[in-house]
Amino acid sequence: MSDQNVRLAPPLLWVILLPAMVLLLSACATGMPTTQVRGTGDLGVVIERADGRVQIVETSGRSVLARVPGLGDLSHASVVFSRDARHAYVFGRDGGLTKVDLLSASVVGRVMQAGNAIGGAISQDGRIVVAQNYAPGGIKAFDADTLELLADVPAEYGTEGKRSKVVGLADLPGNRFAYALFDADEIRVTDLSDPTHPTTQRYAAGRQPYDGLVTPDGRHYIAGLFGEDGLAMLDLWQPEQGVRKILAGYGMGAEPLPVYKMPHLRGWAVAGGRAYLPAIGRHEVLVVDTRSWQEVARIPVKSQPVFVMARPDGREVWVNFAFPDNGWVQVIDTLDQSVVDTLQPGRAILHMEFAPKGETVWLSARDDNRVVVYDTATRKPLGSFDSASPSGIFFTSRAMRTGF
Amino acid sequence: MSDQNVRLAPPLLWVILLPAMVLLLSACATGMPTTQVRGTGDLGVVIERADGRVQIVETSGRSVLARVPGLGDLSHASVVFSRDARHAYVFGRDGGLTKVDLLSASVVGRVMQAGNAIGGAISQDGRIVVAQNYAPGGIKAFDADTLELLADVPAEYGTEGKRSKVVGLADLPGNRFAYALFDADEIRVTDLSDPTHPTTQRYAAGRQPYDGLVTPDGRHYIAGLFGEDGLAMLDLWQPEQGVRKILAGYGMGAEPLPVYKMPHLRGWAVAGGRAYLPAIGRHEVLVVDTRSWQEVARIPVKSQPVFVMARPDGREVWVNFAFPDNGWVQVIDTLDQSVVDTLQPGRAILHMEFAPKGETVWLSARDDNRVVVYDTATRKPLGSFDSASPSGIFFTSRAMRTGF
Repeated sequence: MSDQNVRLAPPLLWVILLPAMVLLLSACATGMPTTQVRGTGDLGVVIERADGRVQIVETSGRSVLARVPGLGDLSHASVVFSRDARHAYVFGRDGGLTKVDLLSASVVGRVMQAGNAIGGAISQDGRIVVAQNYAPGGIKAFDADTLELLADVPAEYGTEGKRSKVVGLADLPGNRFAYALFDADEIRVTDLSDPTHPTTQRYAAGRQPYDGLVTPDGRHYIAGLFGEDGLAMLDLWQPEQGVRKILAGYGMGAEPLPVYKMPHLRGWAVAGGRAYLPAIGRHEVLVVDTRSWQEVARIPVKSQPVFVMARPDGREVWVNFAFPDNGWVQVIDTLDQSVVDTLQPGRAILHMEFAPKGETVWLSARDDNRVVVYDTATRKPLGSFDSASPSGIFFTSRAMRTGF
Repeated sequence: MSDQNVRLAPPLLWVILLPAMVLLLSACATGMPTTQVRGTGDLGVVIERADGRVQIVETSGRSVLARVPGLGDLSHASVVFSRDARHAYVFGRDGGLTKVDLLSASVVGRVMQAGNAIGGAISQDGRIVVAQNYAPGGIKAFDADTLELLADVPAEYGTEGKRSKVVGLADLPGNRFAYALFDADEIRVTDLSDPTHPTTQRYAAGRQPYDGLVTPDGRHYIAGLFGEDGLAMLDLWQPEQGVRKILAGYGMGAEPLPVYKMPHLRGWAVAGGRAYLPAIGRHEVLVVDTRSWQEVARIPVKSQPVFVMARPDGREVWVNFAFPDNGWVQVIDTLDQSVVDTLQPGRAILHMEFAPKGETVWLSARDDNRVVVYDTATRKPLGSFDSASPSGIFFTSRAMRTGF
């Protein structure tokens, strides 16, 4: 009788177990076993530059969720996000383009697309990822899903087909991209709405554009010039008017200051109808009226500014500095253009990123191997976490914004 | 021998099955069996007003993912999103506040918080959801996780403790909220940074504010006035200056036009340093310089405007109209303030929502029971889908923006 029971047991077990396993399998069919189920609007990545690795973070609880290694040379790396905010595209200095799934914390695609790259952008519709390259100079467009190469647009100039370093790549409405050619003294706009048949417009920009930004409305592209004293501005709504020089003669290099680090325009600051721009060499932030494009103020700051970034509500602009003053951060009140705070968040503050609505700002302290999070209302630290030589910090809210 | 095998089978089965089931269970531990694993940056909801239901949609493939019923009276419903873009908070006309999980397509919380409500907002840090109520008049603050009541702030005025209808609620930096009191002729700002001890500032606003908006930078709060000819503007960076009347005497009701539908300011349009506002009664869009707050233009349009909304890049403003002209939509070019297109997307266009970077706009055609998606570059329909009497359309990108 007991033998009989034992013999009957297996089929009974299967009747119970099989439906349960089918249910569980179907529940997991959409993700890897290690994949998290969660919203992705509050996620971000921190570049651990020395280790070729990124940390995946979340800004609601301010915690580190995971680390993803194997991304190559991440010195001067940058990141854009898929339009669903699930994937990060990491552009390495070595030309590597890596697609990271933030939910499974894994590399889901990687291509070596150039020898020396300097960042990238993603199209308005989220379907095209574009890398900007130093060597070979140009831009390359990739399918955002597969990383398949869609278009190679060399930055050729002159008569012998020389190729320029490309800088300042920014996405524009209409799946277009604006960028600058350091060696060719040009701004170019490439239309990738038909990704396999790109068309490019060229505009003379002035000497040695070294970086560029597009204003939040996608209308104005501004390139900083290293080879002359001013900036180049192109009205993308009226490109037939060509490039206009702004801030000509602001005094770049007038003081005998070596330029320890080229400032970044990419962390732009446009607030209250004014653009806040880092001066090259000078210990100043330049303020331009975005209607007249005339200089309206110069704000003396502690050292040579690197990133000049507006808090999302525009009331404050935060500034970090070049070596040897890269342990300092200053805060400018945009209502009266005054410096209202001077902070020492840590050693070698390389980058800052604001939470989407600006309640916190995250700062990389490379030489402390820490990321420090400040409350922007009190300007006091809320906490910090370990990070190996952190540099860039990027939040998924960039996926919803033009020019990031 | 065969009996022996059968007897050994059950323990062997368990050795194989148990680890597998544990693995599968752990994989699913973070979500319901039906929960999707996906990014939430491209999600949204469409209000099916007649059926007390929402559709969950995604804007990358432009598809409907699920429907969630049981949300009560959704006439004049509005939606805000959690800061991780996973949950939608749906405010019903009947005072119901429902928390919907976009990944499991299920109701995870619901409270009846008032008798007659008109929408809500979410705090800068995402921790506080606030409802604005007609009856009893006031605002109520709820824990975004649990929907537990944190604060009840009645809109009392006068000497007998009367309570006003509240309109135009908008979130501000610092976990503050601005709103207007229709019956009390006031704008109020309530600070919920300590949610259980709210503090409120009061400002005289002019007669019968009927709706309000905060500018994208969170600086200026503008209330439309139904009881007089103009709008009320409060500079939240300098509130001590009090409310300033703008567009006084624009001619509300100068023509003998009945007001078929009160315009909405909430779908605000601020682009290129100008605010585009619907005139009450008149067939005009009013254009105001956001630096001087002077009227700079009036744009004649087809009928009485209801929503006047800027494409995210600011180059275009899309306008829908009151009955009987609510089948029309017009497009204004913000470069020269001209109407560049007149469209007929469907019958009874109640609302519009732009994709985060503006490549598409989704329109509710209530009387066609369709949602129609337009390509903003060509202004041609890309597709449509069935929806039962659709009204409001809301995308998760709102979670990353102040004043939505």
